[in-house]
Amino acid sequence: MSGNDQVPVIDCLQYCNYSEEIFRDLRIGGVNAIHTTISYHEDFRETVENIVRWNRWFETYPDLIFAGRTAGDVRRAQSEGRTAVFFGLQNCSSMEDDIGLVQVLHELGVRFMQLSYNNQSLLATGCYEANDPGITRMGREVIAEMNRVGMVIDMSHSATRSTLEAIELSKRPIAVTHANLHEWHPVPRNKPVDVMKALAETGGMLGFSLYPHHLRDGSACSLESFCSMVARAAEIMGVKNIGIGSDLCQDQPDEVVQWMRRGKWTKEAPTEGVAFPSQPDWFGSNRDFRNVADGLKKAGFSKNDTDDVMGGNWLRFFEHSFSSIGSDSPASFAAPRIAAQGTK
Amino acid sequence: MSGNDQVPVIDCLQYCNYSEEIFRDLRIGGVNAIHTTISYHEDFRETVENIVRWNRWFETYPDLIFAGRTAGDVRRAQSEGRTAVFFGLQNCSSMEDDIGLVQVLHELGVRFMQLSYNNQSLLATGCYEANDPGITRMGREVIAEMNRVGMVIDMSHSATRSTLEAIELSKRPIAVTHANLHEWHPVPRNKPVDVMKALAETGGMLGFSLYPHHLRDGSACSLESFCSMVARAAEIMGVKNIGIGSDLCQDQPDEVVQWMRRGKWTKEAPTEGVAFPSQPDWFGSNRDFRNVADGLKKAGFSKNDTDDVMGGNWLRFFEHSFSSIGSDSPASFAAPRIAAQGTK
Repeated sequence: MSGNDQVPVIDCLQYCNYSEEIFRDLRIGGVNAIHTTISYHEDFRETVENIVRWNRWFETYPDLIFAGRTAGDVRRAQSEGRTAVFFGLQNCSSMEDDIGLVQVLHELGVRFMQLSYNNQSLLATGCYEANDPGITRMGREVIAEMNRVGMVIDMSHSATRSTLEAIELSKRPIAVTHANLHEWHPVPRNKPVDVMKALAETGGMLGFSLYPHHLRDGSACSLESFCSMVARAAEIMGVKNIGIGSDLCQDQPDEVVQWMRRGKWTKEAPTEGVAFPSQPDWFGSNRDFRNVADGLKKAGFSKNDTDDVMGGNWLRFFEHSFSSIGSDSPASFAAPRIAAQGTK
Repeated sequence: MSGNDQVPVIDCLQYCNYSEEIFRDLRIGGVNAIHTTISYHEDFRETVENIVRWNRWFETYPDLIFAGRTAGDVRRAQSEGRTAVFFGLQNCSSMEDDIGLVQVLHELGVRFMQLSYNNQSLLATGCYEANDPGITRMGREVIAEMNRVGMVIDMSHSATRSTLEAIELSKRPIAVTHANLHEWHPVPRNKPVDVMKALAETGGMLGFSLYPHHLRDGSACSLESFCSMVARAAEIMGVKNIGIGSDLCQDQPDEVVQWMRRGKWTKEAPTEGVAFPSQPDWFGSNRDFRNVADGLKKAGFSKNDTDDVMGGNWLRFFEHSFSSIGSDSPASFAAPRIAAQGTK
């Protein structure tokens, strides 16, 4: 997978314990771009330290990875044989209570932010809350600001009403970067048909997760079962609005999943999901994206449709998502001044 | 002053209490670019809030100002009839004790940083200390990092030995953005001949200050006296290594100069320099740069040399200073990949 004649492979969500080995896996697996989580519960200053750590990796492994800022960087990654790394946040804790930090974080490379992570946030409701009052007053302001600067609204861990309202309020298409179909595996993190339809009708994207808790039969989920779920999603949403967001957490110690669940909001230790589950044998690392592509073809996807699901759809979404709208903006915004498409 | 056929006017240091009126003054005065101080004693988080305030101004007054990131933005400002605003720090407090923040601040638009402000810092000695042991261990590391990312080392408020060592250690030309000749007005903030020569020999720049404490006869300094000092500097340094850094602090309340002096390092109130002095009658605002240009011509500068001193020299310096060296860098670095010139 190299050269600009080919459709790029894009994984639109992962959070590995990165190392030279994993960066090499990305190259071996032909992954041209990833969206990686840089923060879950971190505040702004802690998030900056996570960015500093990534900047050090970019400086140390320039032959393998570089900081992705624009959709054009995916093509650049292809032509240079490297992987473009786009930053994202799984919660709004990094922007604290300060709407000015949305632009600051964008300038530092953040291209995705979830409005909530499992719990109620200042902006929206998480998928484990008992009640979902929808997007908050501040949430409406932040959606408009994210639209302005070119930061994608990600509702992967948000509750249904909040998600539907975010789709409605946003002037640009939004994403659920990593989740599956609720009807296939009914857990709170997977998405119902009405959310999928609302996403697709507005040009939004759903990325399929390969995290076992999101898979029917968990770690034993078969590639065939996963690909039949993708085929069902294509029936509901069309084949242009779906992609991959593997949620790969390779080499993370179990303390990390406990911290994901607990953050700073509770003193209690989590009682379930306290260890990372084993990955399905057909997807254990960034080397294995070709297995997924092969599975999709066996499930009946054409070569072109398979290419779109493996990255072409995310690339088109990136092209309309990362640049600022109508601003007279700093250079970091200026790159491809493409007007937002698929807006309502 | 508009159109790319003309040499731009650049003021390479000011710290006004900005307002729509001052932004309009910049346009009336034909100022195409400014380097503005955004922090003196602020830590990183406080500096980010200052950037947020500027980002709000950029959004509010897009017809007057925009965020400058590259030398090309000066030309863009000329062609669009606006003023490009470049950020700078008068001390290293914004990067705290964290070398990773140099790149982070560069990504947020910071293009100049003083290694010290009057006092000893983690990096270098200030011009009011009794003893100057030169560039510190951390200072050497930070100089190399500033060279790498494309942030200009500014020694305006530093002591002589530290300044000479910074010139020697830096692989790229450095600047004294706002100071005058010590022989013309012997105060600690003005620079001796050996510093001026070392600057010029390495492609560095001296920006002349119009702050009364740096002027012979203070607020009563005549335009003729100032311009004769510039002529003397041109004899010492050549006419290509000098420019303007007005240190204009228009509309600032006196509390601000007291805070500049006191910062957070002392509990004692300052005993001198506790009020802003009156500006000379020939330079009171950004409307008055033409008076300076006229004065230079009367002092014998040719039109071309006057243009160079008023902005052409800073533009060439910007062209070699703001891009990163040899990095595979984020988009905000990528703009004009000009190899550093004038390096030793």
